[in-house]
Amino acid sequence: MDKIKEFREFREKMNKRILETGDINTKRFFSLDSAVYREGILDSKTKELLGLVASMVLRCDDCVTYHVLQCKSLGVTRAEFMEAFNIALVVGGSIVIPHFRRAVALLDELEGED
Amino acid sequence: MDKIKEFREFREKMNKRILETGDINTKRFFSLDSAVYREGILDSKTKELLGLVASMVLRCDDCVTYHVLQCKSLGVTRAEFMEAFNIALVVGGSIVIPHFRRAVALLDELEGED
Amino acid sequence: MDKIKEFREFREKMNKRILETGDINTKRFFSLDSAVYREGILDSKTKELLGLVASMVLRCDDCVTYHVLQCKSLGVTRAEFMEAFNIALVVGGSIVIPHFRRAVALLDELEGED
Amino acid sequence: MDKIKEFREFREKMNKRILETGDINTKRFFSLDSAVYREGILDSKTKELLGLVASMVLRCDDCVTYHVLQCKSLGVTRAEFMEAFNIALVVGGSIVIPHFRRAVALLDELEGED
Amino acid sequence: MDKIKEFREFREKMNKRILETGDINTKRFFSLDSAVYREGILDSKTKELLGLVASMVLRCDDCVTYHVLQCKSLGVTRAEFMEAFNIALVVGGSIVIPHFRRAVALLDELEGED
Amino acid sequence: MDKIKEFREFREKMNKRILETGDINTKRFFSLDSAVYREGILDSKTKELLGLVASMVLRCDDCVTYHVLQCKSLGVTRAEFMEAFNIALVVGGSIVIPHFRRAVALLDELEGED
Repeated sequence: MDKIKEFREFREKMNKRILETGDINTKRFFSLDSAVYREGILDSKTKELLGLVASMVLRCDDCVTYHVLQCKSLGVTRAEFMEAFNIALVVGGSIVIPHFRRAVALLDELEGED
Repeated sequence: MDKIKEFREFREKMNKRILETGDINTKRFFSLDSAVYREGILDSKTKELLGLVASMVLRCDDCVTYHVLQCKSLGVTRAEFMEAFNIALVVGGSIVIPHFRRAVALLDELEGED
Repeated sequence: MDKIKEFREFREKMNKRILETGDINTKRFFSLDSAVYREGILDSKTKELLGLVASMVLRCDDCVTYHVLQCKSLGVTRAEFMEAFNIALVVGGSIVIPHFRRAVALLDELEGED
Repeated sequence: MDKIKEFREFREKMNKRILETGDINTKRFFSLDSAVYREGILDSKTKELLGLVASMVLRCDDCVTYHVLQCKSLGVTRAEFMEAFNIALVVGGSIVIPHFRRAVALLDELEGED
Repeated sequence: MDKIKEFREFREKMNKRILETGDINTKRFFSLDSAVYREGILDSKTKELLGLVASMVLRCDDCVTYHVLQCKSLGVTRAEFMEAFNIALVVGGSIVIPHFRRAVALLDELEGED
Repeated sequence: MDKIKEFREFREKMNKRILETGDINTKRFFSLDSAVYREGILDSKTKELLGLVASMVLRCDDCVTYHVLQCKSLGVTRAEFMEAFNIALVVGGSIVIPHFRRAVALLDELEGED
């Protein structure tokens, strides 16, 4: 669990520093970045899956980690993850695979925890 | 409707030419590209929304057009589209906006048809 | 001037439609997208040049067109544009060239107008 | 042939304008952009194929058009093109398909000319 | 050699986990990802170089590592690598340089082994 | 300071190896990559900020680190950095955030040094 803990701590610490040293526009972006995933006409689970697949095709590891954790906490199952990852793989191509590997390693770690 | 008709005709014609002149691996990719959106553990609507948001953050206009048409035929409402587009906008940034404009123009056109 | 006029009209019309049919988060993004370019510690001209080079390396033609128009209205000279484009070219590589061509065609058109 | 002619004319005209209005660094980039494709330890055909696949996964239509024309003039066959495109397709994913369609349309046009 | 060994082991272990927990479409993508590099009308060496340059301009370190290892095992020489990297550099720009550095470090390590 | 020192040493060592083992075109690219940031019609500070924002939207960590160090040595203040980062954030979207975090961590480290 150390890598997940480290990810969370660095993320939290640096988001705090960004908001402390940034200006009002920085704060507005961060606030908006939370708002778009909130339960709405589309439910949170669908929205987090959208964020996950978008992060994966754009190959942002920290974003993938974050949305995997969010999806997991909303009850996304392994089979659902794999179908979403397949879409990312076909849309984004084989360059998605290294991120796919790390996402599955994270899921294995999270499930080992349960 | 002419632009949508033109899009569909060129797409269909050239997919046919690609499959005629490509080899077995080309065919396998195209077949897989259909397969990952089929109803599964995740329903087709969710999968098409995943394809749409992935296409939008990767800024592929033809892909956005295709998935908007698919989503519309599966009953995705304007409000659902807008929430999905907001996620694409926040994840992918303002460079997504030109594609957002064209997607809304397409939705306006499709709704004008009804 | 027809292409520039057409660009401006479609942009204005569709931004209006996006804001009419989007929700509060859409509006917040659009408002933020204006705010970050406003005169601040860095002046508007520098900020528009930053937006221009970012748009060019991300190869977003509509964004390049928009920021070229903004920069021109703030007095950016041809020599300044060319130095900024050189940075985009070196950072983003030869795939930037087609956008470079269209940006110079736009500058030629704008200067022909004067 | 009109679209190919138009592509070549705009490309030539704007490259001339870029070199006229740019500075020494602009010229150096353009000169380097020719130099790397010249016959060397790797032959020109291999180098043009590398340029083609790189352009395709980066989804630069003008670059794809240019390298298809270069490859064709160096004797690349349809079967060779299709194998190269398959690699672009698998590496870059389904977002490559719209560019694949336009490349095959161009090849069809070029072969119709012969 | 430890980093290369670690790369290979993680890659192999996680590919196995992906195929165990993924569905038929996952398997089809992975199988296709091997198939497109097989000797065909274009030889394997050319195909691996195409995969290498595509990976480099898309800036996927794990993909670059993989294709460097493949190319090396197919007899690609340092001078051939450098010409291929120059194309990646010019097409993809200076953002390719960090990956260029790591690729040359890997080549140095592999040659130190011989 | 260890991470910054390590970054600089690896960068310097590998640039040397690239130039030793590359050909004339490699050298020309590296020389051009320095030239475009030199004081010209636009001052060096503006040019380094352009390089920084371009690197951030393209999400190249090593490039961001390099341009942050350059900007800092040219007197860019924290408030100026934050306004430039806000533009990168809005243009490039939330996928820029992990790079934003690392850039602020670097700034914190550099300021701790003073």
